[in-house]
Amino acid sequence: MTAQAQDHLLEEHLDHLRQLLREGAAEAIEEYLDRLPPGEVPWLLDHLSDEEQEQLFQLLSPEEGSELLEGLSEEQASELLDNLSPSEAAHLLNHLPSDEQADLLGRMSEARAAAVLEHMDPEEAADARRLSQYAPDTAGGVMISEYLAYPDHWRVGDVLEDLRENRQRYLKYDVQYTYVVDQQQRLVGVLRLRDLVLADLEAPIRELMIPDPIRVTTDTPLQELRDLFHQHPLRGFPVVDAQGRLVGVVRHEDVEEALEQAAQRTLMKLTGILGGEELRSMPLRLRSLRRLFLLSTNLMMDLVAASVIAVFEGTLSQLVALAVFLPIISDMGGNAGFQAVAVSMRELALGLIRPGDLLRVAWKEVQVGVLNGLSLGVLVGAIAWVWKGYPALGVIVGIAMALNTVVAVVLGGTVPLLLRRLRVDPALASGPVLTTLTDMCGFFLILWMASRFLLGG
Amino acid sequence: MTAQAQDHLLEEHLDHLRQLLREGAAEAIEEYLDRLPPGEVPWLLDHLSDEEQEQLFQLLSPEEGSELLEGLSEEQASELLDNLSPSEAAHLLNHLPSDEQADLLGRMSEARAAAVLEHMDPEEAADARRLSQYAPDTAGGVMISEYLAYPDHWRVGDVLEDLRENRQRYLKYDVQYTYVVDQQQRLVGVLRLRDLVLADLEAPIRELMIPDPIRVTTDTPLQELRDLFHQHPLRGFPVVDAQGRLVGVVRHEDVEEALEQAAQRTLMKLTGILGGEELRSMPLRLRSLRRLFLLSTNLMMDLVAASVIAVFEGTLSQLVALAVFLPIISDMGGNAGFQAVAVSMRELALGLIRPGDLLRVAWKEVQVGVLNGLSLGVLVGAIAWVWKGYPALGVIVGIAMALNTVVAVVLGGTVPLLLRRLRVDPALASGPVLTTLTDMCGFFLILWMASRFLLGG
Repeated sequence: MTAQAQDHLLEEHLDHLRQLLREGAAEAIEEYLDRLPPGEVPWLLDHLSDEEQEQLFQLLSPEEGSELLEGLSEEQASELLDNLSPSEAAHLLNHLPSDEQADLLGRMSEARAAAVLEHMDPEEAADARRLSQYAPDTAGGVMISEYLAYPDHWRVGDVLEDLRENRQRYLKYDVQYTYVVDQQQRLVGVLRLRDLVLADLEAPIRELMIPDPIRVTTDTPLQELRDLFHQHPLRGFPVVDAQGRLVGVVRHEDVEEALEQAAQRTLMKLTGILGGEELRSMPLRLRSLRRLFLLSTNLMMDLVAASVIAVFEGTLSQLVALAVFLPIISDMGGNAGFQAVAVSMRELALGLIRPGDLLRVAWKEVQVGVLNGLSLGVLVGAIAWVWKGYPALGVIVGIAMALNTVVAVVLGGTVPLLLRRLRVDPALASGPVLTTLTDMCGFFLILWMASRFLLGG
Repeated sequence: MTAQAQDHLLEEHLDHLRQLLREGAAEAIEEYLDRLPPGEVPWLLDHLSDEEQEQLFQLLSPEEGSELLEGLSEEQASELLDNLSPSEAAHLLNHLPSDEQADLLGRMSEARAAAVLEHMDPEEAADARRLSQYAPDTAGGVMISEYLAYPDHWRVGDVLEDLRENRQRYLKYDVQYTYVVDQQQRLVGVLRLRDLVLADLEAPIRELMIPDPIRVTTDTPLQELRDLFHQHPLRGFPVVDAQGRLVGVVRHEDVEEALEQAAQRTLMKLTGILGGEELRSMPLRLRSLRRLFLLSTNLMMDLVAASVIAVFEGTLSQLVALAVFLPIISDMGGNAGFQAVAVSMRELALGLIRPGDLLRVAWKEVQVGVLNGLSLGVLVGAIAWVWKGYPALGVIVGIAMALNTVVAVVLGGTVPLLLRRLRVDPALASGPVLTTLTDMCGFFLILWMASRFLLGG
């Protein structure tokens, strides 16, 4: 199918969904949504108006509605919830896993989150409140509270009876094993369900369990969790608090998903979206402000850098051709530096470098910088020479470009490490700091050399 | 612990590991690595020299070595393998899951991959070859071949016997259920292991299985797999080929991990690292060339944009103060446009927009562009006025900034969609295309207006 035909088909699906909404045909909608290719659902929901979205969730049962939400990205789900009343949102949240409840509540304003929590099932609300106190990039921030734990003095028969009685509720837990805790709720073992099946009903579970299982703490960072999962091919690890009490389970897929979200957020922050997130369905005011924050900071930094040019206005008025090369020097310095920023951000995320590796990183960047600086310097110098017919101009532009490239990559590679050491988010601040410094350096190099060697200033 | 203390501790661990390597104490090294916090291992390996890395893997058993590799990111693991001989690499690969074998082989040159495959266990090599033929962003590209499938005419007793006989080999499969296939290897059902335990040994598995399970095809895209996993809280889906034959299993965590890698690659490509990947442990020549590719393209584009300035050199020589604002216009246009690029890339990845949504995206960006353009225009105009003491200059700089911001965000929002329609990777090409166009537009606006209204040209 061509892209055009696919677009046309989507438009038809959208029209049909709108028709069903106008008819208020709840059952027909549920059936229709179930039959759609899952890849189309986010697009369709995004293209409904706010009123249509609200109407859709009012028509669907909370179970169906929450299933719909679960198929969406967190950003989009959060956007949709914002259109609903607190009680409507609460009914949907009741049916979501606890980690997603906490994530979605964490995206609301404090007042709204409180209003929604009030309408939620008290037990679900307590869980969500508890989970939302942990940092999002730790085991606590991604763990779920849907797990089974039994006291270590229980017998096999007790556990089987509980499983049978609560069968319906446990269905959504996707359980393969359960945990065993002591009287202080401290984790003491893990019990495979399949071992229960053939065991003596009177046997204490303490004798069947695997004692002292691998565990993580609520503050274990995501990257460390990933490393652990790669070392141990398990589905999940139990999470304990500082006292060794079992407080949740962290699953491999949730860790990977959180890491992916972190990567997306870094990307958005690096390009200057405050908070690392924007969808075009968000309110205009919010979108505008989030972008404006970094743009206006950048403008101020640009003015600082441009003041270097102002100092050399005399030089420029004597040799206007220099003005052509100022934006080029600025852009190339920014680009070369940003490549080094990206590599440092990646290596920081992978745990390959730490703030203490500053000199090592600088040296690695000097090498790349000299190679690429020479190549670019020769290239731009030759072009400047031929274009303007003025060999000395070519030499000066080339030398400025070469030196500025070295400065840019060394700064680009080390600025994220310095910011990390200062506990400033490197994704947010590396860009403006880098471009200001490289611009100042580049402008100064080219204008000072021109005034010194071309004009004899 | 302070960051400095942590760095110091790491250095000590590195020294100790080097000491053990010099002593060739294989067992002591294994024990030491097992005891280290998993977050430290990537750093330590990265800080060993190439020779030390090779020596380490020669000392460790293939099982221990492959476990070490599994705890690392794909980039780093691939880097480490490059230091080993084909037969050493093959021994390590033999013990990795099939999807990771395929990924790591896919990163080698063709000649090296062939040499490594020759030294691998023939069965493992055949599996890896088969898996590496699928695109990395599809179910085929992330599926594993470690799953169990039995013919539909088998009986419960046959299955249990096979499980018992191959217990050792199946341990690494982490099996909860097995698949049932017909004589043509077509998927017909799924069988939960726990249902086998209590079943009659003589019963055909056909009667116990859940018929017609959810399945995906080898070309199902990653994003669609994620949506499916969110809708169905299962650990994995069976993957079938065009003929409905079972060819693999795709697991939730592998889908999320692949999406995270794609996000990382997008980030690196956007900042201009060819291929979307660089670690500082890679060879200098490769690092330099991968960066240089985009830098030299950018330089050419910058020169095209700067030629607009050259046309107005007469204007500039009459009003040198304009030169101060050229790099600012250029930088701000690039920044504003990049924000829109990032949002479009994200919405494309989430399936919220398609190439056909061009006008919708443009309209959404116009709104943000007008708001932010006005704010920035007023700000920079006022500063230009005060700084240069020349009101008309302020007005012109402000208007140019405002208009250029609108142009930049509309281009930034739509260029990724256009590139996607042209089947060009938006992450790779959006940046250079965008900055060239906005630079040309910005330079023209400010210089043309100045020549027309300030100098009456």
